[in-house]
Amino acid sequence: MTSLALCTINSSTRSIARLCRVSHSAHGTADVHSFVARYSTLRNCSASLPRGKCSFIKTGTRQMCQSSPRRISLGRYGKGVFLAAGAAAVTGVLAAGVSHFQRAEMATKISRVEEEDGDIRERCKSFMSPPVTDIKLLEQRKDEMSTRMEMLIMETQSAFCRALEQVDGGSFRVDRWSRKEGGGGISCVMQDGKIFEKAGVNVSVVYGNLTEEAARQMRSRGKILKGKDGKLPFRAMGVSSVIHPKNPHIPTVHFNYRYFEIEEADGTKQWWFGGGTDLTPVYIDLEDATHFHKTLKEACDKHHPKYYPDFKKWCDNYFYIRHRGETRGIGGIFFDDLDSPDQDEVFNFVRSCAKTVVPCYLPIVYKHLNDSFTPEEKDWQQVRRGRYVEFNLVYDRGVKFGLATPGSRIESILMSLPLTARWEYMHEPTKGTKEAEMLEILRNPKQWI
Amino acid sequence: MTSLALCTINSSTRSIARLCRVSHSAHGTADVHSFVARYSTLRNCSASLPRGKCSFIKTGTRQMCQSSPRRISLGRYGKGVFLAAGAAAVTGVLAAGVSHFQRAEMATKISRVEEEDGDIRERCKSFMSPPVTDIKLLEQRKDEMSTRMEMLIMETQSAFCRALEQVDGGSFRVDRWSRKEGGGGISCVMQDGKIFEKAGVNVSVVYGNLTEEAARQMRSRGKILKGKDGKLPFRAMGVSSVIHPKNPHIPTVHFNYRYFEIEEADGTKQWWFGGGTDLTPVYIDLEDATHFHKTLKEACDKHHPKYYPDFKKWCDNYFYIRHRGETRGIGGIFFDDLDSPDQDEVFNFVRSCAKTVVPCYLPIVYKHLNDSFTPEEKDWQQVRRGRYVEFNLVYDRGVKFGLATPGSRIESILMSLPLTARWEYMHEPTKGTKEAEMLEILRNPKQWI
Repeated sequence: MTSLALCTINSSTRSIARLCRVSHSAHGTADVHSFVARYSTLRNCSASLPRGKCSFIKTGTRQMCQSSPRRISLGRYGKGVFLAAGAAAVTGVLAAGVSHFQRAEMATKISRVEEEDGDIRERCKSFMSPPVTDIKLLEQRKDEMSTRMEMLIMETQSAFCRALEQVDGGSFRVDRWSRKEGGGGISCVMQDGKIFEKAGVNVSVVYGNLTEEAARQMRSRGKILKGKDGKLPFRAMGVSSVIHPKNPHIPTVHFNYRYFEIEEADGTKQWWFGGGTDLTPVYIDLEDATHFHKTLKEACDKHHPKYYPDFKKWCDNYFYIRHRGETRGIGGIFFDDLDSPDQDEVFNFVRSCAKTVVPCYLPIVYKHLNDSFTPEEKDWQQVRRGRYVEFNLVYDRGVKFGLATPGSRIESILMSLPLTARWEYMHEPTKGTKEAEMLEILRNPKQWI
Repeated sequence: MTSLALCTINSSTRSIARLCRVSHSAHGTADVHSFVARYSTLRNCSASLPRGKCSFIKTGTRQMCQSSPRRISLGRYGKGVFLAAGAAAVTGVLAAGVSHFQRAEMATKISRVEEEDGDIRERCKSFMSPPVTDIKLLEQRKDEMSTRMEMLIMETQSAFCRALEQVDGGSFRVDRWSRKEGGGGISCVMQDGKIFEKAGVNVSVVYGNLTEEAARQMRSRGKILKGKDGKLPFRAMGVSSVIHPKNPHIPTVHFNYRYFEIEEADGTKQWWFGGGTDLTPVYIDLEDATHFHKTLKEACDKHHPKYYPDFKKWCDNYFYIRHRGETRGIGGIFFDDLDSPDQDEVFNFVRSCAKTVVPCYLPIVYKHLNDSFTPEEKDWQQVRRGRYVEFNLVYDRGVKFGLATPGSRIESILMSLPLTARWEYMHEPTKGTKEAEMLEILRNPKQWI
């Protein structure tokens, strides 16, 4: 009989692996490696859950860490919005339309108090670096969404970096940078590690003024934003990450969660969230794919039953290398311009997503840590890395916008590119091989759950 | 005392190296390797010159293979034009404006008869593949510019490929492809050779109908082209090449020469030429840089004294990686939308340029053939390759247009990408190193002659 580990993380946002080890050791059964290596039996081991304990429960038990279910109202989420101000961390896209939907039953709602209590200064201690915004200011504005989101993205960066350091044994280089026009960021990069060829986790918090035209381009719902003397104060923030492992049996992962607000002349604040997490394996592993999508679906289902199917589709449409007729990977979720039913509800959804990045990915890393591979498998990985570069430089709107924006921190935008990549003329895998199987999936996106 | 080799090529377009070897051997002095390795004493060894012999003359003697000087009229060449129909071989760009110039003295003019005599069917025998257009049609239309240009691009492909095969010892893979909408191409690629990591030489000859809007975008001089029922028949052709050697001391070279014509409703034919050759060294070698630019300048000076300085500047402006604040390489020449003083004159200029690709590059290859290199030098090459990819995918208009055009042959467009590339986070060479010296040059384009 399989068993499930339901482990939770306290508000000091240590990495799941570290916490799980502590919790698990407390049970006196195994170390973290054997623990997370059995991730297929570990569906609900989630870094997203607050102040709990790690314990084993029977298969089939639902995740129990949310507060009681309640109705919430969800309005529409629109077709697109676009911003990558200063760094690729803060980015959005126009993508294929997603149908609007109505008020719906929600499974649960994570209580804000449960997630965000604790002294701000105390929470900051676990970060990779002090937050971009001065801690005193964050304390003064602790109920504002920009503060809550900055704390979330800093916590997400920290949790993910710690989990990766744990598995790799290496350390992230941490670079703080500032933006002349306002704000800055924290870029964490581990390069040529034992496990990771290149791992980047970037936070940015930028602000300043936009022209009405720039604001219009960013939010393409046809809404005209009126600024004071043509200027619109904005604030944008996000966390983004791309992890390229060395072993071709460990997939590349990408995630990005962002928040945007613009103030109109009459003082009205326009705000919206965007984000997503997606996986790019070199070889398909059905168990990994199912685990990844199921973990995301569970996070989505807590907020709206249509989120996962709609955002999964949006993801497949967005991460599409049109000139190749292939998706970049096996997808995940992607959404943008999300501003309903209300700020609290959307933030709770974004938080749920951000909290899944470790449980989505780390178990897959541990599972394949010691997989052997051939030079041919490494070559195929390098060819797929080339395709990753093609997508990021040709299509990714965040990258494109960032590169075109004066004052952007180019190294933070392009840290998403792999350390190494390869372009072979007329590369086409032989029929019946594992490489051909992977390509077939990329050419015909599947439903994984 | 240094000596110069004045060698010429007969109309069967064998490669310069091969011919030089034959000619040189006839003098009983040395083999091709020692011959071309001394390229710095070999300024006028040109594949561009017709039906001559290879012989040694004293330094300081001017190139003697053109017919007598005459005056020609040169009108303006405009700011930009853009077409990359079906493959990157046929590509153009908008670039920084170049001042117009007036009627001027020309050093020489190559006689059309001298360059292009010989039976078409006979000339085709030296090609890498039969031409894209049926030979019978070419014979019927032998005086038309489209035929003369197709023969030139086929000859250029062949001469360059043979010269590269000669030095590498490997063979080009030759792929013929057709375009559903009309025309096709011949892609020659050598991959993972002894000397060349990836060498691609592509010819395309495409035709069909353009919408007025598409035609307007292609030719952005503000001229409105009137089509019959909104349609404009067009024909575009070109040869393009990118060569990435393995040894970091052998630079990457790129060239592209192209011709377009569009027929308006009243039967008027609009036509123009574009092209250029540029060098991307990993480490700077002043002698190489001087040789490369001097060879191009000599080809330009035969046609107009302002061509080299203007097209050199245009090249530096075009091959600029804006987000890095670096040029891609040390430039060369680049021009577009060239349609004056008349078709013959512009064709003669383009032919002179196309004929310089072998003498510009091959001597540099031979010179560095046996240079040793360290793993660190290889790494720096890989980082520079990454920048090459960035330019090609983010800025190159031919690539961008090709990728966005349905029916394009993607493999022919992306064969310009290196086999391998590298992206290191925050890579910055140490002050005083050869890498820092190279970067300094890329950040501040120089006059090489």
